[in-house]
Amino acid sequence: MCVEHNVRAAWVSAIGAVKRAAFAYYEQNDRRYLELASGEHHEIIGFVGNISIRDDRPFLHAHATFGDRSGAAVGGHLLKGCEVFAAEIQVREMTGVELVRTPDEVTGLALW
Amino acid sequence: MCVEHNVRAAWVSAIGAVKRAAFAYYEQNDRRYLELASGEHHEIIGFVGNISIRDDRPFLHAHATFGDRSGAAVGGHLLKGCEVFAAEIQVREMTGVELVRTPDEVTGLALW
Amino acid sequence: MCVEHNVRAAWVSAIGAVKRAAFAYYEQNDRRYLELASGEHHEIIGFVGNISIRDDRPFLHAHATFGDRSGAAVGGHLLKGCEVFAAEIQVREMTGVELVRTPDEVTGLALW
Repeated sequence: MCVEHNVRAAWVSAIGAVKRAAFAYYEQNDRRYLELASGEHHEIIGFVGNISIRDDRPFLHAHATFGDRSGAAVGGHLLKGCEVFAAEIQVREMTGVELVRTPDEVTGLALW
Repeated sequence: MCVEHNVRAAWVSAIGAVKRAAFAYYEQNDRRYLELASGEHHEIIGFVGNISIRDDRPFLHAHATFGDRSGAAVGGHLLKGCEVFAAEIQVREMTGVELVRTPDEVTGLALW
Repeated sequence: MCVEHNVRAAWVSAIGAVKRAAFAYYEQNDRRYLELASGEHHEIIGFVGNISIRDDRPFLHAHATFGDRSGAAVGGHLLKGCEVFAAEIQVREMTGVELVRTPDEVTGLALW
């Protein structure tokens, strides 16, 4: 969608629910993501994300909080393995800036 | 407030605390909300919401994360039963769009 | 940063991770903050915040949700004791408004 509309920088928010939640925790010392997932249905109860350029293409970086049927909350770095039940997503384009991710030696992450 | 100011589409964020948290989990298979509540005081530690048109009137759809006195987080689909202690709310109007909720057969929800 | 750029009103969002999470729960009856902290590394999985004027200077008020390595979420009123590992922060200036915090007798907080 961002490629199609040529959105290269944006702030993203979302509300909805997932059939499956897939997220990760970054091991700061080991510099690797620990993948977590739950096949339970969850509400999306918190969301922070952005679009910037990585490898010359729009790239979504997002973290989410999920609530289960008891209300208990879990979350982390959003992974593609999420199965969306329904979601309302706001992509608020930021014009006049160019945010490009490049490898960062200190953290092991691709940062601006 | 949205009726008075004729706000028909907006993205909403909030920070604050509640005296009573009321929220719900949507049973995706049974297509009904399971209502959850806590009479404990909570901080509002995550919030995603929007205003759109339902039954010809501005309608708030919001999900929230609440933190208790141990820091533990719970949350879900925001219900009217919340009692606000104090809150700072941002309603960012989106002009030039008309988002109207209509019944969706697949999910059982009122979606755009 | 807000002083330097003369930002006096803004809505703030953030995504990232902390080496140490420091936050608080407001005791609504006792009118004091209960400080909580965790030396564990956490993802920032929810964030709501704003900039307004307190004691004649830009002041950040923010609440955050943190996820640990099991995905479990905690959070509250953000304290300065957080140690950031990496963070992407959006400060969206609101022009044409002046939000000034003054003591509120009912809550014991500095509100607009």
